[in-house]
Amino acid sequence: MTKLVLIRHGQSVWNQQDLFTGWTDVELTEQGVAEAKAAGEKLLAAGYDFDACHTSVLKRAIKTLNLVLETMDRLWLPVQKDWRLNERHYGGLQGLNKTQTAALHGKEQVHIWRRSYDIPPPPLPEGDERLPDGDRRYTGLSKDQLPRTESLKDCVARVLPYWHESIAPQIRAGQRVLISAHGNSLRGLVMYLSGLTEEEIPGFEIPTGRPLVYELDGDLKPTDRFFL
Amino acid sequence: MTKLVLIRHGQSVWNQQDLFTGWTDVELTEQGVAEAKAAGEKLLAAGYDFDACHTSVLKRAIKTLNLVLETMDRLWLPVQKDWRLNERHYGGLQGLNKTQTAALHGKEQVHIWRRSYDIPPPPLPEGDERLPDGDRRYTGLSKDQLPRTESLKDCVARVLPYWHESIAPQIRAGQRVLISAHGNSLRGLVMYLSGLTEEEIPGFEIPTGRPLVYELDGDLKPTDRFFL
Repeated sequence: MTKLVLIRHGQSVWNQQDLFTGWTDVELTEQGVAEAKAAGEKLLAAGYDFDACHTSVLKRAIKTLNLVLETMDRLWLPVQKDWRLNERHYGGLQGLNKTQTAALHGKEQVHIWRRSYDIPPPPLPEGDERLPDGDRRYTGLSKDQLPRTESLKDCVARVLPYWHESIAPQIRAGQRVLISAHGNSLRGLVMYLSGLTEEEIPGFEIPTGRPLVYELDGDLKPTDRFFL
Repeated sequence: MTKLVLIRHGQSVWNQQDLFTGWTDVELTEQGVAEAKAAGEKLLAAGYDFDACHTSVLKRAIKTLNLVLETMDRLWLPVQKDWRLNERHYGGLQGLNKTQTAALHGKEQVHIWRRSYDIPPPPLPEGDERLPDGDRRYTGLSKDQLPRTESLKDCVARVLPYWHESIAPQIRAGQRVLISAHGNSLRGLVMYLSGLTEEEIPGFEIPTGRPLVYELDGDLKPTDRFFL
């Protein structure tokens, strides 16, 4: 039996301001920093330890991981950072206020964008400065891989190859893995591991900074799942 | 022409207390944190940027790197952590006060341990709790690799294979590399790159938190070297 721990980054500035964030690279708030440290203390107190870590290329997840590792005195652990663990790209909604967007497009439409499995928000238009195209951390990506918007389904479709290529082999080799990522990239992993349906997964909530533990058998099938 | 930047960690608690540190995993002081941030600001202001980073498995170097990267908004860069970039192992002197040790063994003897190229301090005895043997981060190392003490020569002998295997190929591939490490592991790199002799290298001082820049030609030969 192996334990795998998923953690969603602590509260970010845009969580606090109620803005759609997506790939926008925003800071943690003070509360977010405190949540990350508290997660590290909780893991330490419960006797968890790790051999390998994964995170996205967005600072709210990386800093959360660094704070957890510092609290656990495990800064020396190897960390892989990959864009495929990024938050779902929120397209033209990125930077908009959630309440204002609901007023503009109707609550129902926003609910569809946020809670449907395969309907993406409107894409960012050509030339929009929010597009990730010019960002050096995405240089190696093909035009097809660089999103202008993503449905949850699109997000899952890029998270799972990373799971299969980079994370699952480590767990099979007996390593205890910690993943610090985002609400929707973690939903992708939960959907796959727990076998949730396209109807169930959009409603699965992962609070910020709260470790989600999977106990996995030798075939990487979950025998238990709980929040710490 | 490529630029390579070396940085020695900011001031640590044991630097401040004038203790021999070696592989002891001590924290940065507040001043050390400030030095690391200042180094990031200096690099940023001078237009430096990086593609890949390397550090040791000791928190004073890792935290220095994290603070530099955070200041430069480059937390997403890949970081490799390796024991071969650790500080020189200081053997039986680890944890001892430098002034007291000089009083005990004589100034001249301490000067020999600190400033000779190939004379190691007394080794840690069998069973000493300061030995790295039980430390999980060194699990993969052979009995031969795990030091009980090191001369500067021993330190250089493990640093250079890491340079050749992991760092030099990245630079040859056009990557801009940042290395956050320690006084003596960095001396190993300086000795090799600048062709300093065994007599010259022990006296080459690298201040804490001050970026040391190498400009390298296509054969990785230095065309310039300066502190930023």
